[in-house]
Amino acid sequence: MKLQHIIESQQFTVPMLSELFRLTEEMERIVTRGGTRDYSNKIMASLFYGNSTRTRFSFESAMLRLGGKVITTEQAQRFSSDMTGEMLEDTIRVVENYCDVIVLRHDEIGGAARAAKISRVPVINAGDGKGGQHPTQALLDLYTIYKEIKTIEGVKVAMVGNLAEGRTVRSLAYLLGKFERVKIYFVAPPELQMRQDIVDYLTHHNVWFTFESDLGKVLREVDVVYMTRLESTSQGEVPNTAQHSYFIDDSMMCLLPQHSIVMHPLPRLNEISPAVDSDPRSAYFRQTKNGIFVRMALLVSVLD
Amino acid sequence: MKLQHIIESQQFTVPMLSELFRLTEEMERIVTRGGTRDYSNKIMASLFYGNSTRTRFSFESAMLRLGGKVITTEQAQRFSSDMTGEMLEDTIRVVENYCDVIVLRHDEIGGAARAAKISRVPVINAGDGKGGQHPTQALLDLYTIYKEIKTIEGVKVAMVGNLAEGRTVRSLAYLLGKFERVKIYFVAPPELQMRQDIVDYLTHHNVWFTFESDLGKVLREVDVVYMTRLESTSQGEVPNTAQHSYFIDDSMMCLLPQHSIVMHPLPRLNEISPAVDSDPRSAYFRQTKNGIFVRMALLVSVLD
Amino acid sequence: MKLQHIIESQQFTVPMLSELFRLTEEMERIVTRGGTRDYSNKIMASLFYGNSTRTRFSFESAMLRLGGKVITTEQAQRFSSDMTGEMLEDTIRVVENYCDVIVLRHDEIGGAARAAKISRVPVINAGDGKGGQHPTQALLDLYTIYKEIKTIEGVKVAMVGNLAEGRTVRSLAYLLGKFERVKIYFVAPPELQMRQDIVDYLTHHNVWFTFESDLGKVLREVDVVYMTRLESTSQGEVPNTAQHSYFIDDSMMCLLPQHSIVMHPLPRLNEISPAVDSDPRSAYFRQTKNGIFVRMALLVSVLD
Repeated sequence: MKLQHIIESQQFTVPMLSELFRLTEEMERIVTRGGTRDYSNKIMASLFYGNSTRTRFSFESAMLRLGGKVITTEQAQRFSSDMTGEMLEDTIRVVENYCDVIVLRHDEIGGAARAAKISRVPVINAGDGKGGQHPTQALLDLYTIYKEIKTIEGVKVAMVGNLAEGRTVRSLAYLLGKFERVKIYFVAPPELQMRQDIVDYLTHHNVWFTFESDLGKVLREVDVVYMTRLESTSQGEVPNTAQHSYFIDDSMMCLLPQHSIVMHPLPRLNEISPAVDSDPRSAYFRQTKNGIFVRMALLVSVLD
Repeated sequence: MKLQHIIESQQFTVPMLSELFRLTEEMERIVTRGGTRDYSNKIMASLFYGNSTRTRFSFESAMLRLGGKVITTEQAQRFSSDMTGEMLEDTIRVVENYCDVIVLRHDEIGGAARAAKISRVPVINAGDGKGGQHPTQALLDLYTIYKEIKTIEGVKVAMVGNLAEGRTVRSLAYLLGKFERVKIYFVAPPELQMRQDIVDYLTHHNVWFTFESDLGKVLREVDVVYMTRLESTSQGEVPNTAQHSYFIDDSMMCLLPQHSIVMHPLPRLNEISPAVDSDPRSAYFRQTKNGIFVRMALLVSVLD
Repeated sequence: MKLQHIIESQQFTVPMLSELFRLTEEMERIVTRGGTRDYSNKIMASLFYGNSTRTRFSFESAMLRLGGKVITTEQAQRFSSDMTGEMLEDTIRVVENYCDVIVLRHDEIGGAARAAKISRVPVINAGDGKGGQHPTQALLDLYTIYKEIKTIEGVKVAMVGNLAEGRTVRSLAYLLGKFERVKIYFVAPPELQMRQDIVDYLTHHNVWFTFESDLGKVLREVDVVYMTRLESTSQGEVPNTAQHSYFIDDSMMCLLPQHSIVMHPLPRLNEISPAVDSDPRSAYFRQTKNGIFVRMALLVSVLD
């Protein structure tokens, strides 16, 4: 699989996802054996307009595990000491000379697509804007379901939290909609429920879904509980009474089937009790680890 | 060519520049072939007192392309959490133990020279102060003229913008003054014209130059148009009427000979219309790329 | 010697210190020969909650000299752009997936111990809080005494400056207390003298020590003068008259025996006159260099 750029979840078809996951498994085997790949003459530029150490570290670790090299900034908006506000396009035309692949975290929706339009080296979108895309997160989420539940077809997923503004749940819903017999339970207070564009998309693709406002009611039925934060950075605090229905603790875990898993894109605030961390069904730290292998596979796909 | 430190443009003679450009061409061939050099046991420290991601990335990419390694900071002024204002000399005496070459961006004129005076490892000046030196930029500018026009002797160069405060045009004028039959057209509003020290230097070296305030008048005559920003960070906005005379767009490009090129140290503000980017005479992004090869050659010169 | 984590000075016994110093000498020989070790498939994460470029560069240079790789942040408190204040434990559980060893600079006392408690990869404490530990600094200080004076047993050390709040002198006193016949001279104004906990510890271990307020009086008697800053970041400026007694200049150096050395953890403010730097007894920059070798040895001890 040769990819030119990785900009949005939509660009991946089911056959492409299958091949990506096969390649991801190969990457995991390489790392487990303490091996590497020969990308010693390849340089990845981490071009981050704002801090996201988690995502940046994940990409940089992936590139180093492949034997490659990294140049990095978390202050791309201060690209020059002389002025601020250089056009993104100019910055890309400069940075493409310094590297073989650009991992871009931009603060505007569509930033990655603008960069890809003019870049001579591959661009990977590491998140662009609050309501924008973060495709590599969606891919590692989907891979985690595939790896833990052994299938994506027919999987039953509860998505919990602030679904209206959650970039990760929106992207994951989009990817899940490409598979057969998937069932999605949107669990959120009415004012934070999944928005109409995703609802329309799922309806169009004949995906079964339902709205719920009490997590306890759906836990017995699902394979995956995908937790996200309830608080919105733009809306402030949610009342404590509401939080109680969107919180996982030991008593909630009693309702969850033995084969099921709890996921979270992290960082968590108080949606999941730390007491639950040692439960083998808590998959959120394994999910993080999968990010390395998925990103290694994506880097290989654009560099080869 | 073995160099101890790279502090100012003045240290380079014409024979040294010839050898540097030969080595630069060798570096370009190595990178083009996907090769490297064996500097795997060499460490470069990027010691930047302030953000300049462009220059830092360029040096770091050059070092990595040579097979070397990098440690980096853009906040060298916060070298310790305990106190601020450690003497530069003390910082250098510490950092020289951690690396094999120091690339220093300092905020005071003469900072690089002070560092070189006491450092046991080579120091490369990556810019020191607003009115100070930035010799590697001047060298990559000169190399770009050499590569694109095939000669520096007899070249006709228009320098455009805020020449009074432009570090790059001042350094380039200095280097050009070392070559035979060069002609320089200084194109700027009277209050932003080239300062007397450079004028005296060129007069002393019998270099032909002239002052102009309208770019359109000289475009037909020159091999190189070196554009810079008109706005000064210290003087604020320039009137729009003035800008019009120091702006390159399609209609201006019609006046420029086919063999000529447009250069810019970047970032640009609005001196060059993006519509001109696709014109093969627009050399500013190639100029950026040349920076990698020039800096590789300079690193080799101080490390060998 | 296989270490799991490096959290505090107390964990090192005298036999462990002997083995560490033997390994440190081996590391110095490797670097001197331009050699390396094969840690090319190992990644070190520099996880710094706040700037300490000196310590970070030292660790990163050590890892690179071993052939290893590095991912780095000085803004770990801004680990996510979505929220601040993620639990340290969660951050560690994420970062452990990206690397083979975590070098942690935390801003709370006990941070490193909390991280080590849950981390599956080794954690090295690079300083946790103002009154906390900084064991690798203490180890490089002790190694410098060992290397310069050829013995630690029976060594006579003056510790000078703000001893009440000095993290380095407190840790060094602790390590020195493990050796036979050591004599310590605490030289400080009464209000900044060494605190009772260390005094009790030394008394318990039968270490000879004395309190002094005039540096000139003890210089003739000691093997090592360990200078630190007098000013406290929490207490503001110290009167100039007081400073005069805790200052090293040429005239003070006349009192110091020829075989003795002056140490300083750096950065210095005005405790040591720059005129003294060229004196062969001024060991503070050699002390910095020793930090590389000690940290290489520590990395080897946790990675092997």
